Amino acid sequence: MNYAADLDAIREAAGRIARYAHRTPVMTCQTIDRLAGRSLFFKCEHLQKVGAFKFRGACNAIFKLADDVARKGVVTHSSGNHGQALALAARLRGIAAHVIMPNNAPPVKKRAVLDYGARVIECEPVLVAREAAAERVLAETGATLIPPYNHPDIIAGQGTAMLELFEQVADLDAVIAPVGGGGLISGTALAARELNPKLRVFAGEPQGADDAYRSKQAGKLIPQTGPKTIADGLLTSLGELTWPVVRDLVEEVVTVEEAAIVQAMRLAWERAKLLIEPSAAVALAAALSDRFKGLAGIDKVGIILSGGNTNLDKLPW
Amino acid sequence: MNYAADLDAIREAAGRIARYAHRTPVMTCQTIDRLAGRSLFFKCEHLQKVGAFKFRGACNAIFKLADDVARKGVVTHSSGNHGQALALAARLRGIAAHVIMPNNAPPVKKRAVLDYGARVIECEPVLVAREAAAERVLAETGATLIPPYNHPDIIAGQGTAMLELFEQVADLDAVIAPVGGGGLISGTALAARELNPKLRVFAGEPQGADDAYRSKQAGKLIPQTGPKTIADGLLTSLGELTWPVVRDLVEEVVTVEEAAIVQAMRLAWERAKLLIEPSAAVALAAALSDRFKGLAGIDKVGIILSGGNTNLDKLPW
Repeated sequence: MNYAADLDAIREAAGRIARYAHRTPVMTCQTIDRLAGRSLFFKCEHLQKVGAFKFRGACNAIFKLADDVARKGVVTHSSGNHGQALALAARLRGIAAHVIMPNNAPPVKKRAVLDYGARVIECEPVLVAREAAAERVLAETGATLIPPYNHPDIIAGQGTAMLELFEQVADLDAVIAPVGGGGLISGTALAARELNPKLRVFAGEPQGADDAYRSKQAGKLIPQTGPKTIADGLLTSLGELTWPVVRDLVEEVVTVEEAAIVQAMRLAWERAKLLIEPSAAVALAAALSDRFKGLAGIDKVGIILSGGNTNLDKLPW
Repeated sequence: MNYAADLDAIREAAGRIARYAHRTPVMTCQTIDRLAGRSLFFKCEHLQKVGAFKFRGACNAIFKLADDVARKGVVTHSSGNHGQALALAARLRGIAAHVIMPNNAPPVKKRAVLDYGARVIECEPVLVAREAAAERVLAETGATLIPPYNHPDIIAGQGTAMLELFEQVADLDAVIAPVGGGGLISGTALAARELNPKLRVFAGEPQGADDAYRSKQAGKLIPQTGPKTIADGLLTSLGELTWPVVRDLVEEVVTVEEAAIVQAMRLAWERAKLLIEPSAAVALAAALSDRFKGLAGIDKVGIILSGGNTNLDKLPW
């Protein structure tokens, strides 16, 4: 079976982005370990450029473009972190970025995209409006569309976080990443299977946006409708490139309640000083769930803390 | 001139605490660099155990005690981070810790001390009450008093952050640490002078608690009276061991206004995802001050982000 990326593509991505991306630190916290009943190793992607792992994929996709293609710029639609990531990567390459954002996106995310020098095009927060806006910009500019997750170069880029984590922590038994569109979990699983086939890969998902969980149960891709969760990076459905990876290479999707997400986020802030956003807290909440704690044979767990972009004027507690 | 510690003592401390303390990461942020007009390297002591550099000194002091002395436990008075640090270090050594805290200390700090297994003794928030409580506990237990900053082993321990930073970042021109009682800035300056005599050492201090600034101006130790600042880790006066170091080895004390402290704290949270407390933000605020930005010959600046213990229910913006 062929998937969207393999370890070679992920290693290439790592080489391509090394000059631009942070090699993020891995932190531990004994207080949280006691609650989890295991040793957790936090891969701090909230300390990545633009505050999220999304920079890895965007940077890989943009720097992989041929010069004559890149010159015409890039377009994306994103409610947040991918938009910032693309904006910064485009600036680093010296090309234009057009970011289509729903008009209800958090102000801090819109401001950040503008700060990185991209053009923001607002649209109604529905798929058709988003796609129409993208078509318009593509027609006007000849730019390349770089979607947030359903793209081989994006997936390979996101896999570089797992590659680093593997180098930073020896003998992990498992790794947990949050799942939304599936770019991060796919890159993670695709890196893990070749680095160490025994490494068990889990996804954390909000109960209020549990399309990955339901798709795994049903054995077929079930798109998300009407998602409702504080984890605003995980509202989207799996794509056609990410679903097969989740289906085949993710051992289990662990779903968590909203209260558990907020509790995990506060725990990370208060006890570990890790300023993570709710979407990242989903992975920690999964690690702290009874379901995950009940699994045997797991001592050392990597947790990919996906990002830290929150509205500091409106914290969820 | 002899000071409270030298590089040998700091290296010994580093060896002593290596098993227990985190080697904290150094992070950078291009957005903040643009504001500072230079490259800043953030030594993330808010990611240290107990969320503050204080663990370094407490751990060094406690593990340096002879067995028969250690057995009787340790006592300190602290409004917060040092109390937590001593509590954890004592637990790691398996001895009792008695922490005297003012009854107006932030609840999160008191809860953390209790969580680390120490005994908390509350007293009125005035020096005489604090000292009376300490005397009583010392008489009852025979424990050793380990003060928050005015102690050679504490100062040597705090210097280990600078030792690591020196190993982590090549060719620093300057370093800024916040100054309260002076343990951190003294350890930093004492490490720096032997590691690289050309490394310029600056202190950041709130205008509302500017005893170090005024002492430098006057050429003699002027104790702080009636401090008023959000930076609750910097309320104390310099001590007899830390003052000579600040006097001789710190190039300048840069004072900052309350609004600049809050602004720097928010900047660190929002753009760099560094969850720092106001006292740590003082060092960043100093780096962003017109006074510091006007100094010539400084390209690369280390900023010691001292801690991250804040009340998450009551943020200052």
